[in-house]
Amino acid sequence: MTDTKITLPESEIPRAFYNIAPDLPTPLPPPLHPGTRQPIGPQDLAAIFPQGLIAQEMSQERWVDIPDQVRDIYRLYRPSPVYRARAFEELLDTPAHIYYKSEHVSPVGSHKLNSAIMQAWMNKEEGVKRLATETGAGQWGSALSCACQLIGLECMVYMVRVSYDQKPYRRIMIRSYGAEVVPSPSPLTHQGRAVLARDPDSPGSLGIAISEAVEDAATRDDTNYALGSVLNHVVLHQTIIGQEAKKQMELAGEYPDIVIGCHGGGSNFAGLAFPFLKDKLDGTRPGLRAVAAEPLACPSLTQGRREYDFGDTGGTTPLMMMHTLGHDFMPRPVHAGGLRYHGSSPLVSHLLDAGLVEAEAYPQGEVFATAVKFARCEGTFPAPESAHAIHSAVQHALKARDAGTPTVILFNLSGHGLFDLAAYESYLTGKMDLNA
Amino acid sequence: MTDTKITLPESEIPRAFYNIAPDLPTPLPPPLHPGTRQPIGPQDLAAIFPQGLIAQEMSQERWVDIPDQVRDIYRLYRPSPVYRARAFEELLDTPAHIYYKSEHVSPVGSHKLNSAIMQAWMNKEEGVKRLATETGAGQWGSALSCACQLIGLECMVYMVRVSYDQKPYRRIMIRSYGAEVVPSPSPLTHQGRAVLARDPDSPGSLGIAISEAVEDAATRDDTNYALGSVLNHVVLHQTIIGQEAKKQMELAGEYPDIVIGCHGGGSNFAGLAFPFLKDKLDGTRPGLRAVAAEPLACPSLTQGRREYDFGDTGGTTPLMMMHTLGHDFMPRPVHAGGLRYHGSSPLVSHLLDAGLVEAEAYPQGEVFATAVKFARCEGTFPAPESAHAIHSAVQHALKARDAGTPTVILFNLSGHGLFDLAAYESYLTGKMDLNA
Repeated sequence: MTDTKITLPESEIPRAFYNIAPDLPTPLPPPLHPGTRQPIGPQDLAAIFPQGLIAQEMSQERWVDIPDQVRDIYRLYRPSPVYRARAFEELLDTPAHIYYKSEHVSPVGSHKLNSAIMQAWMNKEEGVKRLATETGAGQWGSALSCACQLIGLECMVYMVRVSYDQKPYRRIMIRSYGAEVVPSPSPLTHQGRAVLARDPDSPGSLGIAISEAVEDAATRDDTNYALGSVLNHVVLHQTIIGQEAKKQMELAGEYPDIVIGCHGGGSNFAGLAFPFLKDKLDGTRPGLRAVAAEPLACPSLTQGRREYDFGDTGGTTPLMMMHTLGHDFMPRPVHAGGLRYHGSSPLVSHLLDAGLVEAEAYPQGEVFATAVKFARCEGTFPAPESAHAIHSAVQHALKARDAGTPTVILFNLSGHGLFDLAAYESYLTGKMDLNA
Repeated sequence: MTDTKITLPESEIPRAFYNIAPDLPTPLPPPLHPGTRQPIGPQDLAAIFPQGLIAQEMSQERWVDIPDQVRDIYRLYRPSPVYRARAFEELLDTPAHIYYKSEHVSPVGSHKLNSAIMQAWMNKEEGVKRLATETGAGQWGSALSCACQLIGLECMVYMVRVSYDQKPYRRIMIRSYGAEVVPSPSPLTHQGRAVLARDPDSPGSLGIAISEAVEDAATRDDTNYALGSVLNHVVLHQTIIGQEAKKQMELAGEYPDIVIGCHGGGSNFAGLAFPFLKDKLDGTRPGLRAVAAEPLACPSLTQGRREYDFGDTGGTTPLMMMHTLGHDFMPRPVHAGGLRYHGSSPLVSHLLDAGLVEAEAYPQGEVFATAVKFARCEGTFPAPESAHAIHSAVQHALKARDAGTPTVILFNLSGHGLFDLAAYESYLTGKMDLNA
């Protein structure tokens, strides 16, 4: 039997992030100032981001160096293995070869740590003392609090109230890493108080929590803001996933026909897909398909319009050209909390419009049925978010079976579901809203 | 910077288990029949164990082959990395080099899966349809239910009631792997009903749950019993940990002065230590120290007597010569549920008596203080059980600092603490009984 895991030595941790911006067929429309509606410049972001990250956000350089100190921290869990899912292939009785990049092996359980470490490090370099952020399901909050602890920054997390109440383990993890975490909407910000005045029982949303964290950062000299997805520099940091995966697929002697990631804000999808899309954009691999899998409950790519919209509910962030359901959209409470975001990465949106990526949307009942099958074959419980990518992979593997076509599929297992077992119980005991 | 992780390719998954029995300075006293008090033979175990495991239990062969099919399943997560804990060394300001074997990377989160896979496979080979077992904190129950699902057996888990209630995620995990799980004491067995008759609110104990699982297996033709620690064959299976670690330490260019594992039933300690102890027993490494770290609340090695005792509370198992606190001992409810066992591995007990291993006991407050420090340096939350090994490593690292002695320490990170975050919260909010 050949190896189940394709591993790389630490020397193969990428030395640069891949920036897709200069390779786009047409330029990305710039973000606009929320007041003037004119393109923003670096100075407009300086109140909440360090110069280094602002430069990355706007960079047109194809390769952006990764500092050695950041690569050293990545050694804690990188390179992550690529798995061949043989037992899952057998269950599906498919000729497809199914591979997955295992980003769930990070200490916080997801890919989010990749960008958290880089963001914390660049803030620290510029003398920032404290970062403020939001978190939905808790993956990003865990990641940033871990990174801040490793690098030596204070951290403040506004956690969507419904997750704060339903996912106690995530908030305990955040506190254990030494960060402060409060349910959002909170009474600590104008934005939070405004929401609470309208609805004291508000369950909160990512959009509201973003408004709170941005206000916190904008109103304190010692504090910057950190976002876990959507923005160009976050997507940039995640491209280490796809760069490693390309080397690993080469070791496996295959090149994927289809790469798949789940899609909320876009960073794990883009992180895996963009280094492969580079080959499509330069004509080397014209047939490559890149698929973003999103929840039917929050279908920003498949049903949203591409237009300028705010990143937050309060309308305080720059306007971004992206697929959006509207910044006041309140998605149904599906268990994939990390995908409940009204908007999407401007880069992913741009590529979707250009026909270079595809999008699919699935109801959570189907997604959990796949998640349970996967866990029983591979041992690992996927996060509900990541299970969307697995479910898409299953559809393509079944098509390959029906067509009798050998197909190589690579998806991103962006996080584990160990803190989502209550959702699994809800599914297994028939209490889940399957069609949501 | 040198690598943080020392990895091995899948080809280095061990091909044989190391059996320490033939290398012991004096023979291990045999188990006795609970009725006759005479040494038992293979036939006495045949009602609940397959012949293959009984042969391993009594084997005097130094090396026991690992079937290729079992090695193929191990590929899901093995070889596990050895980490150099540099940030932790810096925090402790010690000249000691601290390494840890990361058994927490298995899909179920602990080393337990190593033996679960082998036990399930050998039962399947002999036509058994179903396994019954007990679980305390849930690590072993998760592992056996995962292994049974991977290999194609039914699985029944008697879970200590207090854990069943306090650790819902573990029981959901067990169910998600397709196993049945009931709180113990249960009304399903004579043993369970007898306990419930005396105390309807019994919180249960490992000893009671073992009695129930053994009864289940003994009274059903299609069912065997599986135990997660203590017995010789379980300890045998875990020696793949130490065998891998020896190769990894060789790659690091070091040999440990001290190897450390936490100690409940003994399997993770023995699994790491025995392959190193082989070098002490044959005179190659006379100075090697092997340290078992146990909770002060259940100090079987440091305060128990070595005598023949039952493995279960009901007094139905063979009598084993081991360090024990008495089979009716009820340990205080410390969070390291996996270490709350009255007895210990006969092999570990034998080596302790011979002066070849050492034992230390720590109160849980100290252990959690160390666990939080470790998580903040290394990112990973250790299981409360494993944190005992870390805490012992800290003591030896601090002694090395005070003495100015370079010391190489290797401990077993036998499991992660992601399902134990409520215990971390109890510690961080000052609600823990620190002296328990």
